Amino acid sequence: MKAIAVEPGAGEPTLVERPIPEPDAGEALVRTLRVGVDGTDHEVIAGHHGKVPAGDDRLVLGHEAVGIVEDPNGTELAEGQLVVPTVRRPPADGTNEYFESGEPDMAPEGEYVERGIVGAHGFMSEYFTSPAEYLVPIPEELAELGFLVEPVSISEKAFEHAFASRSAFDWEPESALVLGNGSLGLLTLAMLKEVFEFERTYCLGRRDRPDPTIDIIEDLGATYVDSRETPVADVPEAYEPIDFVYEATGYAKHAVETVQALAPNGVGALLGVPEPWEFDVDGGQLHREMVLHNKALVGTVNSHRGQFETAVDTLSQLPEAFTDDLVTGVYDLEEYQRAFETGDEVVKTAVEFGTL
Amino acid sequence: MKAIAVEPGAGEPTLVERPIPEPDAGEALVRTLRVGVDGTDHEVIAGHHGKVPAGDDRLVLGHEAVGIVEDPNGTELAEGQLVVPTVRRPPADGTNEYFESGEPDMAPEGEYVERGIVGAHGFMSEYFTSPAEYLVPIPEELAELGFLVEPVSISEKAFEHAFASRSAFDWEPESALVLGNGSLGLLTLAMLKEVFEFERTYCLGRRDRPDPTIDIIEDLGATYVDSRETPVADVPEAYEPIDFVYEATGYAKHAVETVQALAPNGVGALLGVPEPWEFDVDGGQLHREMVLHNKALVGTVNSHRGQFETAVDTLSQLPEAFTDDLVTGVYDLEEYQRAFETGDEVVKTAVEFGTL
Repeated sequence: MKAIAVEPGAGEPTLVERPIPEPDAGEALVRTLRVGVDGTDHEVIAGHHGKVPAGDDRLVLGHEAVGIVEDPNGTELAEGQLVVPTVRRPPADGTNEYFESGEPDMAPEGEYVERGIVGAHGFMSEYFTSPAEYLVPIPEELAELGFLVEPVSISEKAFEHAFASRSAFDWEPESALVLGNGSLGLLTLAMLKEVFEFERTYCLGRRDRPDPTIDIIEDLGATYVDSRETPVADVPEAYEPIDFVYEATGYAKHAVETVQALAPNGVGALLGVPEPWEFDVDGGQLHREMVLHNKALVGTVNSHRGQFETAVDTLSQLPEAFTDDLVTGVYDLEEYQRAFETGDEVVKTAVEFGTL
Repeated sequence: MKAIAVEPGAGEPTLVERPIPEPDAGEALVRTLRVGVDGTDHEVIAGHHGKVPAGDDRLVLGHEAVGIVEDPNGTELAEGQLVVPTVRRPPADGTNEYFESGEPDMAPEGEYVERGIVGAHGFMSEYFTSPAEYLVPIPEELAELGFLVEPVSISEKAFEHAFASRSAFDWEPESALVLGNGSLGLLTLAMLKEVFEFERTYCLGRRDRPDPTIDIIEDLGATYVDSRETPVADVPEAYEPIDFVYEATGYAKHAVETVQALAPNGVGALLGVPEPWEFDVDGGQLHREMVLHNKALVGTVNSHRGQFETAVDTLSQLPEAFTDDLVTGVYDLEEYQRAFETGDEVVKTAVEFGTL
């Protein structure tokens, strides 16, 4: 079968031939339909992140997949069931408490591998196998968009954790600001607007008009904030103090600026993963502001099966007009390289390995 | 009646004569028993914090009080009931949503006054009045220690908010680190050890032995961490990564160092109130660490009536040996100045205005 793999440092993925995998006991064989491409894939391709599985010289990419059960192999899944795989798996030395309690997203570094990212092959191949417990059934209507379940689940977890931090009091948020107009930022903006019904939403980027992401932001009824004119810390003065900030750029100064952008009793969810970077901050003011106005910052990574299941519901609620604009390209194996191209016209892409 | 008041900038409190207050409708008249002294009082005395009530030239101090209802004045309180007053009251321009929902601790600056601190006279007088809704009944056994209910309630709120932030997953914390060995830090340490049953507790200070706070820490079965030898960021290497960090010093760098001290999935509660202070931080590493290990920082200030009520229960559970060591001096009005003296031998003091 064909697979899309990357050699560390090679700078671009290549098409390779691999044997169709044999499912072990408890695993199902899945025929791949579509696999999305995101920022993490680009970081793996560039060699900034990720790890090839032990004993291999390449990593099969892909962690945002949707497929169809080809061989249930004695598991409770039915042949023909549409499924989305979760990403984390137990490390080579065996399972641990995080996997046993169904919360692998809370496992510290070293206590997991991630398919398509760290130490385990991904889903960008015509078939893949997975333990059935890591395959989340989805309805047939979501066959084409199922590759968005994984990124939506990332934000489901971020919302759960951030909102939990505000559950000790009567919190009625009205405004939300998403930092970053990449595909995850836009998906999150749509979730906040359409599913969580935030009254006023903002999305920050650094693009000139005309721009497809600004169009998406405004079509959602949100306000585009150009960070070159209005830095995050100035949002309260230019617009309003924000109840919920979602940081999805990995720009390290945003963690600090988020505290300044927050309204009293607000919370910032941090999702970006910056490199080490030293800079000057008014740590006294930051600390003081967090205390006197009961603010919180919550870091969050990955997601568990329950959040994938919620994401399936959420994805069904997003307007078709939005997802049509979000997905700018789905490419079959013959032109898979186009799915990895970047540029201002590209928002979200996927590779199509097969169809229903 | 006699009261202890401070003139802005005078640097020390003085004894003044004031009329016994007349309770308005809905208010009770309370005869004061004891009022504790804490770091906030010292900041108000030094002129670094606080505000005299409009139209007055002095502020009556005191926000940690216990008293006995002298005149219920038609409220539901009974004559002779022991009570502890909460601290925040609606601002001069009237009540607001935070007071109406019973959460004045969540009100932003400007939407409250604080008795004995900001814009309203405190409880350091032989009598005070208060709306009955802000008077929390306590049992007679707590008459002598009732002035500790307010500081305990501050930590009850901090625990509620910090632990809420970890409620979206299965969190089983075992280790706690209190930054600061002042009276609030020590009270919090005792709460974590005796009531919340953390298995391993640490308390950070910068004192040489012999020292009464180090004795208290060790008598509680906790480990004293000398920050001159082991800075907060080095705690994981010297001891262990910490599940719950409670910051009570107001030293601005602690907010950043707390993230480094935390174990994966841990939370830091920030309570200190530093002045603005710019310094260099590795904001990239800070942000990255919060995300990849699901860490949270929660700022918290003040407390509401429900947390005072919980604090009454908690205070009853603290060992007598601990509170005996904590309270190093209770002084009557003739030697009230001794309650404001500081030094390594002083841990917690109170002024006694009357007895049962």
